[in-house]
This record gives sequence, structure tokens and C-alpha cells, in this order.
Amino acid sequence: MNISGELLIGRHAVRGGAGTIHAIDASTGATLEPPFGGATPEQLDQACALAWQAFDTYRETAPERRADFLEAIAANILALGDALIERCVSESGLPRARIEGERGRTVGQLRLFAGMLRQGDFLELRVDPAQPERKPLPRADLRLRHIPLGPVAVFGASNFPLAFSVAGGDTASALAAGCPVIVKAHPAHPGTSELVGRAIRQAVQELDLPEGTFSLLFDAGLAVGQGLVADRRIKAVGFTGSRAGGMALMAIAAARPEPIPVFAEMSSINPVLLFPQALANRAAAIGEAFAGSLTLGAGQFCTNPGLVLAVAGEGLDRFLESAAASLARIGAQSMLTRGILRAYCNGVGTLAQHPRVQAVARGQAGNDMQGQAALFCTDADAFLADEPLRHEVFGASSLVVRCRDLAEIRRVVESLEGQLTTALHLDAGDHDAARTLLPSLERLAGRILVNGFGTGVEVGHAMVHGGPWPATSDGRSTSVGSLAIARFVRPVSYQDMPADLLPPSLRPDSPQRHTWRLDGKPQGQAD
Amino acid sequence: MNISGELLIGRHAVRGGAGTIHAIDASTGATLEPPFGGATPEQLDQACALAWQAFDTYRETAPERRADFLEAIAANILALGDALIERCVSESGLPRARIEGERGRTVGQLRLFAGMLRQGDFLELRVDPAQPERKPLPRADLRLRHIPLGPVAVFGASNFPLAFSVAGGDTASALAAGCPVIVKAHPAHPGTSELVGRAIRQAVQELDLPEGTFSLLFDAGLAVGQGLVADRRIKAVGFTGSRAGGMALMAIAAARPEPIPVFAEMSSINPVLLFPQALANRAAAIGEAFAGSLTLGAGQFCTNPGLVLAVAGEGLDRFLESAAASLARIGAQSMLTRGILRAYCNGVGTLAQHPRVQAVARGQAGNDMQGQAALFCTDADAFLADEPLRHEVFGASSLVVRCRDLAEIRRVVESLEGQLTTALHLDAGDHDAARTLLPSLERLAGRILVNGFGTGVEVGHAMVHGGPWPATSDGRSTSVGSLAIARFVRPVSYQDMPADLLPPSLRPDSPQRHTWRLDGKPQGQAD
Repeated sequence: MNISGELLIGRHAVRGGAGTIHAIDASTGATLEPPFGGATPEQLDQACALAWQAFDTYRETAPERRADFLEAIAANILALGDALIERCVSESGLPRARIEGERGRTVGQLRLFAGMLRQGDFLELRVDPAQPERKPLPRADLRLRHIPLGPVAVFGASNFPLAFSVAGGDTASALAAGCPVIVKAHPAHPGTSELVGRAIRQAVQELDLPEGTFSLLFDAGLAVGQGLVADRRIKAVGFTGSRAGGMALMAIAAARPEPIPVFAEMSSINPVLLFPQALANRAAAIGEAFAGSLTLGAGQFCTNPGLVLAVAGEGLDRFLESAAASLARIGAQSMLTRGILRAYCNGVGTLAQHPRVQAVARGQAGNDMQGQAALFCTDADAFLADEPLRHEVFGASSLVVRCRDLAEIRRVVESLEGQLTTALHLDAGDHDAARTLLPSLERLAGRILVNGFGTGVEVGHAMVHGGPWPATSDGRSTSVGSLAIARFVRPVSYQDMPADLLPPSLRPDSPQRHTWRLDGKPQGQAD
Repeated sequence: MNISGELLIGRHAVRGGAGTIHAIDASTGATLEPPFGGATPEQLDQACALAWQAFDTYRETAPERRADFLEAIAANILALGDALIERCVSESGLPRARIEGERGRTVGQLRLFAGMLRQGDFLELRVDPAQPERKPLPRADLRLRHIPLGPVAVFGASNFPLAFSVAGGDTASALAAGCPVIVKAHPAHPGTSELVGRAIRQAVQELDLPEGTFSLLFDAGLAVGQGLVADRRIKAVGFTGSRAGGMALMAIAAARPEPIPVFAEMSSINPVLLFPQALANRAAAIGEAFAGSLTLGAGQFCTNPGLVLAVAGEGLDRFLESAAASLARIGAQSMLTRGILRAYCNGVGTLAQHPRVQAVARGQAGNDMQGQAALFCTDADAFLADEPLRHEVFGASSLVVRCRDLAEIRRVVESLEGQLTTALHLDAGDHDAARTLLPSLERLAGRILVNGFGTGVEVGHAMVHGGPWPATSDGRSTSVGSLAIARFVRPVSYQDMPADLLPPSLRPDSPQRHTWRLDGKPQGQAD
């Protein structure tokens, strides 16, 4: 499949008429062909009109058909074969094995939602049957299902060009819910975006779905993204990216005549807590594993460990020595874009010049497209006194905060903003100390993990990739895992509705009703 | 129990130091004793500090204990006996039977959430067990529960001084979720608020819960409410009231350093659709029932039928005659406050003077505290041309829109903003017509009901009292029924957490785990 540089507006591939984006080889800085045209306001309007037109039809497709659709997207992505992998490696600068793994995750994610649709319980059906004899008033028959919100605008992330982009978690969960999707492609990987977009468009055609079910737009500036969020036919937004970007979209969404929800996953420094017993027993091993997590994908993970908290002492010193030795062996890696590299270098530079921050180690130096890992150290007083030390430095940079005792660790934890993850390294003798911190940590993060790092995000049913502000704009949501579908649906209650007017899933004789609640009590059993 | 006019800040009853509110007898206009003092900024800060202090303890109380707490509140409200009923009738101007019924609903609502807590499944537990042998990477053990957001600020409504006020649905669902609650009392029923607040405070003491679990504040202006929503320790807001009020709180919440969700139930005109066959068969009966729903509680219901759509013709004429005749027999009723009465009279006056609106009927005239019901008529062209005709007139006023045909009804429906309810009056011969409108109606409202009116809101599991903007600030939520608890919780995932550090509900040997999902599949059966 060739890359044409065109927008995908429903079934049509058309040249964007508003400015041009060039893909850049992230490892070499070379410009890649072809150029991509940004969407004009008219082209944006067409995509929105088609999405709105598709909505009522698409949302009432049988869940099994949407499952087939998601599986067809997965198959079509795999069928792109090496062309997709090579383009994606080139645009992202990420290693081939990582991109292949990410493709597996993307396809697995689509299949997870397909399985959920076949199981049928994402509708969260509820039935409170009529009680005509009830005193003093009879009770009406009430039946509840969830319906999709409407067309969803998806803003892909640069750091996961497959799993958090055109066919990533936001798109998969919105399509599963029954929402048409318009993706605003990330300018860092337009060719990858077009290839995946064509795979989705092909699945729309294979399943004979309304063409407006999916569109893909490029944006040579900010106008397309802003216009999408402002468009009256868009009913929700999925975004992964910077805090400033997420907040800008939230402001647009809140100022609409009809405000809409924005699910933005924005920033996190993912505190790692090292407990005394674990440090005493295995400081060196933890330090080495930490260096691996810190530098994975050049540190360009939302769940990258940007902050380490521990009580000062011999154990922490050994952790630092080990981490420093490991970092010194790790080569510099290409970063996703020049802009990200620049921001990373600025962030590291600010820390390096901070009067109360000490440099612990650097990774190997690289060329002018590559980021050099960095590890810094400070004490709790300095950290608590200087708010900017809490800011995310996107990339392989981390700050270790030496604390006097557990109480000081708690003060630092309580001073932090919301996080996606927090990781605890502990042994049996640390459980009591960990237990006292857990209430603070639960209030802090969406995922708490033990003896690991947050950089592996399992796509499952019990995963939360979300957390209190500013990790996400809505801490009640997750953008990874099957619970992500809940973002894009709303409940509707049907009262005394004749059976032939009820949606199929709520009819008394429904063959689809897999799991439901009768007067609040769950019915139906796992098979 | 005497009414003292004091704030309830945790266990202390203290005189508010910022201004004074006087309760007014809604039927006579007389000032009622005692005066109530508004909270100072320091008193507001105390209530927030206590709520925050209570949070970690209260949220980890066993669900059974919170169930006992909610049932104790219900018992204490009932124990207030006639003193509560009389004060509430006096402050609201609503009939005694209505207030007694509302007390039953309030108590039933508390017990519904108690039952849900005993059942234990509001936590929506999920377990994806470890797969140490999985290739290429082992799978970690992931366990998910929902935890409460934090202290919740509740703003009661004037029109349901018990069921949507101090111990109403917002408070009941927040307390059930594990959130401490601070209520900003509605100035229209401060005595009722204090009595109910004392009933809750007594239950806090009976169950030996942290004193900050509940506080009640009066506000002589807007500062206390605004300050509450802006306070960093408040993590969510429940509000029922005007659109302007809800939007003001949303703006404050969005501008915080940490934005928080506001669940505001604001405005709705609840379109009623009369289908041809139903009108042919029983226009007069529908007209009479409509007049009853319109004037219930002086029309001061969020679900009051403020708009009627039907195809012009003989059937609609008979409906109008019947409704007019019924209204003429219905006496004027006291309205909740002078301000509401004034706004109602203004709204009715504007309609009466509108060049393209015809007056159909008025209810009986009353005294200067009473609202006189009003029914108007216009045509679809006029309605579509003049946006203000779509605005809510809070009270017993409704506008009938004569349409040419079903297509014009659809155009009117599609022109409307989001609604709490829409009601369809139809007979067997109308099903095909109704079916074609259902997609539009599902996008329009949170509850669709057949051959009834929205003014009865059942407190159950399949109820939705919510709807797209501006019916509510978040159309994905309901403020009535057991699903209301979902507003106040967020998911947290625990990865590879040792059993003794897991919360009790997620331990492998948990006795509490009533319903849960294993690898996404629901487990456990209704008993």
C-alpha cells in the first residue's frame, strides 16, 4: 500500500488544501516523502458531517458486527506487514523490535474490545420490572442500557505511533462503544498514520459500515484539532500528549455552547519508592532495573520513572552507584522529534544548573538527534521548596530525592500532583512502612505496583492507565484496558416502553442479554 | 429537636459569623424564626479541614458499616416526626402529603444505597491473575477496585427540600461511595436543612465515624458556595438548580489548579410527544393527565412537561380543550420562593406577549405568593425561529407546538438541547411513527417514557435522572438511582501487590467479594 499524503474523509482519499506537513526520519533528520496536506475548514466539515450521518446507523450495529470490524482492522494492520514497521521505525526512531511489539499490542487491544463486544456486557443492562400492585403507587417498568455519546475526536500521541495513535486505545474503545471516530494525525508520524488509517477504512468497507464511521485528518498547524473539538457534531475527545495541549483542548470543549468531555492523558512523573529492607537486600539489582526502565524507548513513556524517593543511607547510595553504572553502559537513543529532544535538553539543563540539585550520572552521549540519559539527586527540603522540580522532563531523566525518614517521604508524596503510576520496591520487612503510605498513594495514582516499573502497561480488564489531575483530565477514566469503553457511553432509561419499541438488548426475549442486573442484582454467569 | 440557626461543623454547632438568612413561610410570606448565620471563610476552612481529615478513615470503613450509617440517617429523619414535616411544609409551601411522600422517598433512597453497600458490588472489582508462563512476557497480577474521590460539596435544590437536599440523592450516593460531604444549605429551607443535618450528625456519632464525615453550612450570599467549590480539599460537586448557577460552579471548578468534576442537574423542558392514534383514541384523557402533571407541586419539577409536540388537527384540539378545562379547575399554588414566583411570572408574561404565541388556558388565580398555571400554543415555524421559546419557564407553564407532520416534529426535536426526560403518548397504531423518532429521542434525553409523564422519578437501579447538556453538566451521569454512586468513585489498579497489602475486598481470600470480574468475565451470582 502506497503512502499518498492524502486525507481520508469517509471513503474518499483527498489532498488536504491547508498547508503541508513533512515526515522526518527521526534517526537521521532527513525529510521523508510524500508531503501531507493539512485539512481545510471545508474538509474538516465534511468529515464531521459524515461522522454525524454515520452515527445513528453505526451505533445500532449488532455488537458482533462491531467485533468483526475491530478484528478486520487488526487483520488489515497485520497485512500491512513490513511496510508499516519500516515506516514507523523511520518516523519514530524507535527500535524495530519495539515497534513490532507495539503492533502486537495494538492488534491485541482491538481484539480485546472485540471479545468484550461478543460478551455483550459493556452495555451494563439493568431491568427493574413493573410492580403494578405496589402501594401506594404502582411501579413502572424501567430498563436501562448505555448508548454511545456520538462522534469522537482522537488525538494520537507521538510516543506510541501505533498503540496510542490512529488505531490505538482511544479509537478502539470509541469504535467498540459505537462512536464514529475522526483522528487528527500526529505530525510526527503521518505516514504511519495514513497506512493505519487506510487499514481502518478498508475494514469499514469490508463490513459495509457507513463511510463516516472513520476519517483521518492531517493538520499543518493547530486549526484542524481546535476546529474538531469545537465542532457541534463531535461529542467527546480522546487525547494523549502534553499538559499544555490537553488543557487547550479542555478549554475549547468547555467553552462550546454544549460542553463535551475531554479525556486527556497528559503528564506524570511516576514516583518510585524504595523501601529500606529492599534496598538493604538488593539495591544494586533495583538500580540496574531502574536504569533499564528509565531509558526504555529513550524514556519517552508516560509511565517513565521520573522521580525516586528513598531514605538517605548506604542502601540508597548503592542504588545510585548501580543505576549510574548501568546508565553509563546505555547508548544514546534517537528521540521522536526535534522538538521533544529540544525540550528534553532544556529540562535536563535546568536540573543540571539548579543550585540544590546534584548530577549523579549521564548515559552515553550521542549524535544531534539523540537524547542522553540523565540522573539527578536532591534532598526533600529542596524538592518541597521548589515547585518546578516536580515538573515532568519528558525523556530519560529522573530525579532522586533523599529523605530523612518515612514521614518525609510521605510529605513529598502528599506534595505531588496526580500520577498515572507509583511503584514500590519492598521486601517482607517493609510491609508495615508501605501500609502506612498506601492511603496517600491511592489518592495519588491510578496504578500502584510492587517490585516493578510502570513502563509496561498490560492491556487487560483490571488495568488503569489514568489517575488524578494532571495525569488525566478526568481521574475517573482509563485510556488503556477494557474499562476505557466507559468513557464514551451514557445511560438511557426506557420506562414502560412496548417490547417492539425497545432496543433489542432490552427486550424481554432478548437473545443478546448476556449479563444484566435485575432489581440491581447481577444476573447471568460466566460461561 | 430545636432549630438553632447554627452551622454544623463536624461535631460542633456554631453560629455562622457572615451575614444572616431568614427563613420565609412560602404560603404567607412571614419571616420564620430563628435567623441563620452564614459561614465565614474560617468556618468554611474548618469544615473542609475536618472533611479532609475524615476522608482516609471514612473511605476504608467496611461497606456494612456505611450501610448501617445510611440506615441510621433514615431512622433519625423519621424520628424527627411532625416537626420536620411542619417546618418543611411551611418553608416550601408544598402540601403536607407531598412532603410526607418526599420524606418516604428520601428514606427509601438512603436504604437503597445501604442495600447496594451490603451487596458490595459498587466497587466493580476486577482481577486479571498473573500468568508467569506467558510468552513473550509474563503477565503481572492486576486487581482493580473503585475508591471514592474525596470530600464532596453538595448544593441542595429548593424544589425537593428533602429528596434533593441535605440528605438527598447527592449526599446519599457520596456517603455510600465513601466520600465525606459538606452541604451548602439552600436558603429557601434552612430550618428543614438544619433538622436533617442534625439527623445526619447524630448518625455520625452513633456509628462512631470521624466527625468530618458531614458538615452543613449556610450561606448569606454566594461566597460560601463559591469557596467550597474552589477549596483544594473538595474533590467533586453535586448540584441541582438553575443553569446559571450550575455553570458558575462549573467555571470555578474548571479554573482550579486541580479541576474537579461538577455534576450539575440544571434545566429541562421535557418534551411530550402526542402521536395521532393516541390522540384519536383518548385525547381528552391525555389532556387531563397532562394538566395534572403540569401543575404537580406548582410545576416546580425538573421533569415538568414544559413542551408538547403534536401534529395539528382535531385530536390535538380535543387535547387542548381537555387540558384547558382541567387547568381551569386547578387552584393556584404557593411557589417555593418569591424569586421563583417572580421568574415564573416573567416567563409567563414573555410568552403571553409573544406575537406568535397564543394563550390557551390559565389555571385559577391566587394570592401574591401563588403561581397561576399557564398553557400556550404556537406553531413549529415560530418555535424554530425563536430560540428563547425553548427556554425553561420553571413552574406550571407549558407550550404546545403544532406541527404539520411527523417530519416537522422531528425537526423540532432535533433543534432542542439535551433533556432529562421525553414522554411519548402512543397507541399500537403509532409504533411505526415512534420507532422512526427513537434515535433522535435517545440522543435527546436520559429517560424516554411511554404513556406517562416524567414527574414521577422512581428511585431504583434502572433509573436515569440525567441527560445531555444542559439537562446535566455530564450526560454520562445520573443523580437519582443506584448508578448515581458511579459519579463519586475512580478506579485504582494494584499490580503484583502482596496479599497483606491489598485492600480487603481484593485479597484472594476476601469474604467481601460479592461480585467481580475474572479476566473480564462476571463472577458470582445473585443470591
